[in-house]
Amino acid sequence: MNFKRSFSVMNKNSIPKCVQEAEYAVRGAVAIRAGEIKKEIKEGKKFKFEKLVPMHSGNPQALGQPPITFGREVLSIMTHHQLGQSVDFGRYSKDAVDRAKYYYDNMDPQALGAYAGHTSGYDGVKNDVVDFIKRRDNIEINPANLFLSTGASECIEIFIRLLISEASDGIMIPIPNYPLYSASIILNGGTQVPYFLDESNNWALNIENIEKSYKAARDKGVKVKGIAVLNPGNPTGQVIKKENLKEILQFAHENKMVVLADEVYQANIYGDHKFYSMHSVMEELGDPIKSNLELVSMHSISKGFTGECGLRGGYFEFVNIDKFAQEMIYKLKSMKFCAPTPGMIAVGTMVNPPREGHNSKEAVDLYNKEKDTILSGMSRRADMLYKLLNKMEGITTNPTEGALYSFAKLHLPKKFIKEAEDMGRHPDMHFCLQLVEETGMITVPGSGFGQEEGTSHIRMTNLIYNDDLMDESMDRMHNMVKELHEKYS
Amino acid sequence: MNFKRSFSVMNKNSIPKCVQEAEYAVRGAVAIRAGEIKKEIKEGKKFKFEKLVPMHSGNPQALGQPPITFGREVLSIMTHHQLGQSVDFGRYSKDAVDRAKYYYDNMDPQALGAYAGHTSGYDGVKNDVVDFIKRRDNIEINPANLFLSTGASECIEIFIRLLISEASDGIMIPIPNYPLYSASIILNGGTQVPYFLDESNNWALNIENIEKSYKAARDKGVKVKGIAVLNPGNPTGQVIKKENLKEILQFAHENKMVVLADEVYQANIYGDHKFYSMHSVMEELGDPIKSNLELVSMHSISKGFTGECGLRGGYFEFVNIDKFAQEMIYKLKSMKFCAPTPGMIAVGTMVNPPREGHNSKEAVDLYNKEKDTILSGMSRRADMLYKLLNKMEGITTNPTEGALYSFAKLHLPKKFIKEAEDMGRHPDMHFCLQLVEETGMITVPGSGFGQEEGTSHIRMTNLIYNDDLMDESMDRMHNMVKELHEKYS
Repeated sequence: MNFKRSFSVMNKNSIPKCVQEAEYAVRGAVAIRAGEIKKEIKEGKKFKFEKLVPMHSGNPQALGQPPITFGREVLSIMTHHQLGQSVDFGRYSKDAVDRAKYYYDNMDPQALGAYAGHTSGYDGVKNDVVDFIKRRDNIEINPANLFLSTGASECIEIFIRLLISEASDGIMIPIPNYPLYSASIILNGGTQVPYFLDESNNWALNIENIEKSYKAARDKGVKVKGIAVLNPGNPTGQVIKKENLKEILQFAHENKMVVLADEVYQANIYGDHKFYSMHSVMEELGDPIKSNLELVSMHSISKGFTGECGLRGGYFEFVNIDKFAQEMIYKLKSMKFCAPTPGMIAVGTMVNPPREGHNSKEAVDLYNKEKDTILSGMSRRADMLYKLLNKMEGITTNPTEGALYSFAKLHLPKKFIKEAEDMGRHPDMHFCLQLVEETGMITVPGSGFGQEEGTSHIRMTNLIYNDDLMDESMDRMHNMVKELHEKYS
Repeated sequence: MNFKRSFSVMNKNSIPKCVQEAEYAVRGAVAIRAGEIKKEIKEGKKFKFEKLVPMHSGNPQALGQPPITFGREVLSIMTHHQLGQSVDFGRYSKDAVDRAKYYYDNMDPQALGAYAGHTSGYDGVKNDVVDFIKRRDNIEINPANLFLSTGASECIEIFIRLLISEASDGIMIPIPNYPLYSASIILNGGTQVPYFLDESNNWALNIENIEKSYKAARDKGVKVKGIAVLNPGNPTGQVIKKENLKEILQFAHENKMVVLADEVYQANIYGDHKFYSMHSVMEELGDPIKSNLELVSMHSISKGFTGECGLRGGYFEFVNIDKFAQEMIYKLKSMKFCAPTPGMIAVGTMVNPPREGHNSKEAVDLYNKEKDTILSGMSRRADMLYKLLNKMEGITTNPTEGALYSFAKLHLPKKFIKEAEDMGRHPDMHFCLQLVEETGMITVPGSGFGQEEGTSHIRMTNLIYNDDLMDESMDRMHNMVKELHEKYS
C-alpha cells in the first residue's frame, strides 16, 4: 500500500523560527556523521581506523576514565538497600556504608525511587554542598538558596527563561562560548550580547572589550540583564584571574546585571593557576556589591574528575535573589519534579569525598590516588595537545589552564576555504568533517562556539584515558593535516 | 552591617508574564505548606498527626511501595560493573546478570557514567521498547522514531515548544488536565483550548464537546495545532474506550492536528477495563489516518507498577513526523544531552521484564508476584477511596478505572466558600489547606487541574502502601469533613 501523505502539521514552515535558529554544535553535524560512520563500520565498510574517538564532548567515561570508587560504592549500597533484602555490606568500605546511612537518614522520602519531597533535593546532600562552599570560600550559605539540579544545563535554562521577557532583553556571553548559552537565548527569543575573549592573550577576559560591547548593545536599544562568565572557560580553557573577576562583578553591579557564574570546571585546574569562585570574590569586594548583586553559581558532577555525565547531577547556588524570583525558580524547577536521585547522591559524594579526620586512611588514600591519577592525566594530555597541535602545519593553540579542552586555531589553505564555502560549509566544519572521515576523531568546529569573523577553530577534549590511543590519534591527525595542506596548497 | 539593597534585576516587574502565569499545582501551595508543617513538627510543634501523608503526587515509593527486584538487580550490577573489581555475581539472579551483560553489549559508550553516544539513548534499551510495542500492538516501529527521555515531562515540553510559534497557536487539553500541559502552553506563549470531560458520565470523553470547543476556538482566530489525550486520564482516572479513541483520531486528522498521547498510566488499569494504545487504534483505522496523522506516544517508569519516579526515565515514540521536525526534536533533546543512564536502564527492565520462555521460572514468578501485589493493592485502594469518599458528607466521586488517582467533587457549605473567597482562595484550595493542617494528608485542589466554573474538587492518590495508614488517614479525613460541615452549616 503506497499511500502518499497529504499534509503535516510540524514542518519547516510551522516550527518556531527560534527553534530552527538555535544551534547546539556539540551534537551537531560532525557527531551526526560519526553516528553514520559507526553504522557503516558495522555494515562492513572500511575506514582508515577501526573505532571512532569521541573528542567532541566532555564525556570522560566514554574514553575510559573510571568512576571514583567511593561514589559508586555509596550508590551501589543505596540501590541495594531498597531491595529490602539483607545486603552483605562486607564488600563495601565502612566509609561508604556510613555515608549511605547518612544519606538515607537525611533524605525525604527515604526511597531512591521516589521523587524528592522537596523540589530543591535531599537535605543530606544539600548540607554537604553547604559544607563544601564553607571549606572552599569560608562562606556560610543558606540551604534555601541552593537547588540540586539535572546538571548545570538545567540552571542555564531556568535563568535565561527568567531574564528574557522580550526580544530587546540581552545577555552577555563570551565568544567563543559554550553553545548552550547562545542556543538558550535564541530559544527564549532574546538577544545575545557577545564579548570577545582575547586569543592573543591566552583567551583572557578583557574588561574594556566587555564595556565596549555593552555600550554598543545599549546604544542599539538592548536591555542587558545578565552576563555569563565561564570559569574555567569552555571551549577556551583559560582560568580567570581574581582581578578580572573583580572587574566583572563591578561592571555587572554598575550596570545592574545578574551574573551567571558557570563554574563546572572548578576542579580542572592545571599548573600554577588558581580558581576563585565568583561568590568568594563578591564577598571580598564587600558592600554594596556583596548585598546588591544577583549571582548564580553552577557546579556539576559531569566534569571535574568525577565525570559522572550519565547520572545527570549538579547544583546551583544563588545570592541576593528576590523572594518572588525564588518562587519562580521553585515553580520552573517543580515542573521537572526533582533532579535524578542517583545524580543527587553523586553530587554529595563529589563535594564531600573521603577526607582526613572524617574517614578512614584507606578510603582517603584510595580517593586521593584515584583523583590524582585522573587529574594528572588530564593535565599531561592538555600539555601534549598544546605541544602536538602547535607542531602541526597551520595549527596554533594556547596552553590549556583549566577545563577539558584545547581550542586551536586553524590556518587553512585558501583553496580549502573556497571548497568549503562552495559547499555552504564553514571552513572549520569542513575540516572537522574531513577529520572524522580520515581519522575517526570526533571534534567540534569553532564556528559552533562563535569566533572572530574569518577565523577557524577546532575544539578537542584532553580526555583519551588510554595513552596509546592518544598517541595514535594525534599521529593520524598530524598526517591528515599534512596531507590536507599538500593537497590544497 | 545592615546594608540595604538598592536594586534587583529579577523581580515581579521584570520576570516574563508567561513564567508568572504558569501554574503547577502538584507542588503548589498545599505542598509548600506541608513542607512548613514538617519543619514545625521537627521544632516540636504539635499537630493532630505525627507524620505527613503525601497523597498529592503519583510517587509510589514515597508511600512504601517497594521497587521491582529484577530492575534494581540489573541496576546494581551495572553500577558495580564499572568499579573494575571482581564483582560477586552470586547474590544476583542469573537472569539479572544476563540482562546487565546484554545492556552493556548494547550501549555506547559502555559506561553508565558517560553521556549516551546518541541523544536518543541506548540501542539495547530501544530494542526492548521496539519489542514491547510489537508485543502490545503487533506493530513494528522504527527505532529511529523512538527517544528515551527524562520521564514523559520532557516530551511534553519538546512537542509543545515545536507546536507553538505565536499566541494564536492553540493546543487542545482536557479539563481537568494534568497541569504540566497547561503550564507548558502558557510558558511557550500559546493558547489553551480546553475540552471538558463529562463528570456525570464517569469523566468520559465526548467528541461533541471536543468539536464544539474546537469550533469556538477557531472562530476566535486560534489555530489549533495539537490535541493532548491522557489515557488513562489524570487526574480523572477514566480509561478511554476504543470507539472514543477512533473518534479523536478522526477528528484530529480531519482538522490537521498532532495527537499527543500521554499513556504513562497504561499499566494501571482496574476491573474489566482495557487499554488500547493510540498507535494501535490508528493502525486499525488504516489510511489515510494511518499514514497522515502525526502522533506522539509517551510512556514512563515513574508510573505503572515500577514507580521509579526518582530515577527519571521514559520514552516517546512518534509516527508520521517530518524529517525536518525530527531534526528539531533531536536538537532540542541534544541540548539536554541524554536521559539519565540509570533511568534508561530502568526503562529497559520495565518494558522487558522477566518473561516465560525468556527467563527462569524463579525470576518470572518473583516478578509476577511483585507486580500483582502492587497492582492489586492499587486496585483495592482505588475501590476503597471510591467507597469511603462517597460516604463522606458533601463528597461524591466516580469509580477509578485506571491511573493512580481519585478526583472527587466537593460540595462545600456556602459559609466555607465565602470564607475562602474572602481570603482570595479557591474553595478547594481552602479545603486542601485545612485538610493538611488537620490530618497531615497532602492533596491537590481541583482548581489546579481546571474544572467547571463554580465546582470544587480534590485529587488524592491510591498509593498508601500500608493498610493501617490508609485506614487511619481516611478516618481522619472523614472526621475533618464532618466537623467542617458542622462548623460551616
